Amino acid sequence: MRLPSRLARRGLAIGIDIGGTKVAAGVVNSEGVILAEEIRDTPGHDPREVERVIVSLVQALSAEHRVLSVGIGAAGWMDRSGSTVLFSPHLAWRNEPVRTNLEKLLHRRVTLANDADAAAWGEFRFGAGVGQDRLVCITLGTGIGGAIMIDGRLERGNWGVAGEFGHQVIVPQGHRCECGNRGCWEQYASGNALGREARELARANSPVAQEWLRAVGGQTEQITGAVVTALARQGDTASISLLEDVGEWLGLGLANLAAALDPGMFVIGGGLSEAGRLLLDPARSAFNRNLTGRGFRPAAPIELAALGPKAGLIGAADLSRAAAWR
Amino acid sequence: MRLPSRLARRGLAIGIDIGGTKVAAGVVNSEGVILAEEIRDTPGHDPREVERVIVSLVQALSAEHRVLSVGIGAAGWMDRSGSTVLFSPHLAWRNEPVRTNLEKLLHRRVTLANDADAAAWGEFRFGAGVGQDRLVCITLGTGIGGAIMIDGRLERGNWGVAGEFGHQVIVPQGHRCECGNRGCWEQYASGNALGREARELARANSPVAQEWLRAVGGQTEQITGAVVTALARQGDTASISLLEDVGEWLGLGLANLAAALDPGMFVIGGGLSEAGRLLLDPARSAFNRNLTGRGFRPAAPIELAALGPKAGLIGAADLSRAAAWR
Repeated sequence: MRLPSRLARRGLAIGIDIGGTKVAAGVVNSEGVILAEEIRDTPGHDPREVERVIVSLVQALSAEHRVLSVGIGAAGWMDRSGSTVLFSPHLAWRNEPVRTNLEKLLHRRVTLANDADAAAWGEFRFGAGVGQDRLVCITLGTGIGGAIMIDGRLERGNWGVAGEFGHQVIVPQGHRCECGNRGCWEQYASGNALGREARELARANSPVAQEWLRAVGGQTEQITGAVVTALARQGDTASISLLEDVGEWLGLGLANLAAALDPGMFVIGGGLSEAGRLLLDPARSAFNRNLTGRGFRPAAPIELAALGPKAGLIGAADLSRAAAWR
Repeated sequence: MRLPSRLARRGLAIGIDIGGTKVAAGVVNSEGVILAEEIRDTPGHDPREVERVIVSLVQALSAEHRVLSVGIGAAGWMDRSGSTVLFSPHLAWRNEPVRTNLEKLLHRRVTLANDADAAAWGEFRFGAGVGQDRLVCITLGTGIGGAIMIDGRLERGNWGVAGEFGHQVIVPQGHRCECGNRGCWEQYASGNALGREARELARANSPVAQEWLRAVGGQTEQITGAVVTALARQGDTASISLLEDVGEWLGLGLANLAAALDPGMFVIGGGLSEAGRLLLDPARSAFNRNLTGRGFRPAAPIELAALGPKAGLIGAADLSRAAAWR
């Protein structure tokens, strides 16, 4: 992707990251810097409500900045052209021509992207993946988001739904997954998996569950991956041990992806990546132990994302700029 | 890839398919038709011997035809430029600059490709995958060969070793694989898996093993996937049942690949694909049962390869032509 230098210097875009609870929007310049930001609650399940929030955010942010385009990242599947939302878990959009609707309302070019793709684009342009030809990005949150970049382009698959690594079956007849399968990777290597394991120990009155229960006032159901991650960073050995388990599953799955895709680098982002080396050290170790052809091939580095929770917003903004000026 | 029409009409290339026991070579025209063919035994483990066989085959075939380029397909890993063999299981090449060596000997442009890539290219250009933007090709033989085609190009990965789907772990702590891992997909969905299961039943004196033992004169170790496939096609219920098991593993693995890559079509070739619907029906059924997002996305068709065992030879020839005239 090559941007004309004048536009690369000056073009501003708004990036909007629609999450399950919050909608974050920001004005992003061509160097990936956020100049202004607004946050709203994610509205309920009426597509018109979501559109109204987006319009209101764009109006607020463009009052002070000359914004040329708007990029939106959301969990779910967009068609390959980025114009229609096929399915989104948090939103009521189903086969909704969201781009056309919004372009009419916003009088600006609009781009839609899967949230993991938006984050990957952000990391590729301004973060850990700069300069990489072949990149696989993993967003570890409650589940696993995935994105593939090849030669500077997001690879979206034939129907726009590539990158669902989290739903590759890694344990036949394993844990049930919301997608309907059993044994999906994200049931073993995600924040949800971390929380589930901790709650199981707490319910069994395991002595190792003490710290988790203390942290949530004895409410077992409130033990989440975030709780375990925070305690691990404070040195709790049971939490560190669960992160090691999750890290090993992460590394095994990354080795599977390396077998199939042979990327030059893996970039790991999302909330669970805040565990840092507590997660990545066991992941790297399991990766190296399970990489097929080890010894006869280079092992791709596994790096932490650099942009943190803003990767999706920054990436969505930049994708709209690239689409606008390609 | 666009070929100048004059060359597309007239250019002849030699394709060479180096297998574990035989080296097959053929003159292939620009419509993928084999005009002449020669077969030799694969020589032992001396790289010079392999080169001598290749030179002799090219000399024999080019006596009668004006050949512009030579394409070679072999099991193993080539670097991304197609000039160096990093590793080949059957051959003694290790980090061997095979292309340069052979171009000096043959006075023609030479292209090296992984055998699964060569077969995929053949199917894309002249077989089951014609017109497909995004194609995943699986060669089911003793193991699983894999290739990814995106927008008319073979996707080789960062270091040239993409497509090793057979070594994605699908059963943690499962059967040992030659690659050093446990539970690789090719230990469950391949001709080797089929033979292993049948031999296990035969060793246990299972009554269902009768037909296999009869076919090999009572020599359990001679029961192979090919024996089981042949008997299944004759209606042996135990053989059909083992093919169903293998087909189910195949379908599960294809669903995993669809989650990651979202291809528009799967093409299944290789020796085991001769089982036809006995393999593909259970595979399709398991694929549809395990495809993540089923109901919200199209399901890629799973088709049999069209070129049979010549796909690799034809594809290797055509790859050399594409490389020569790009």
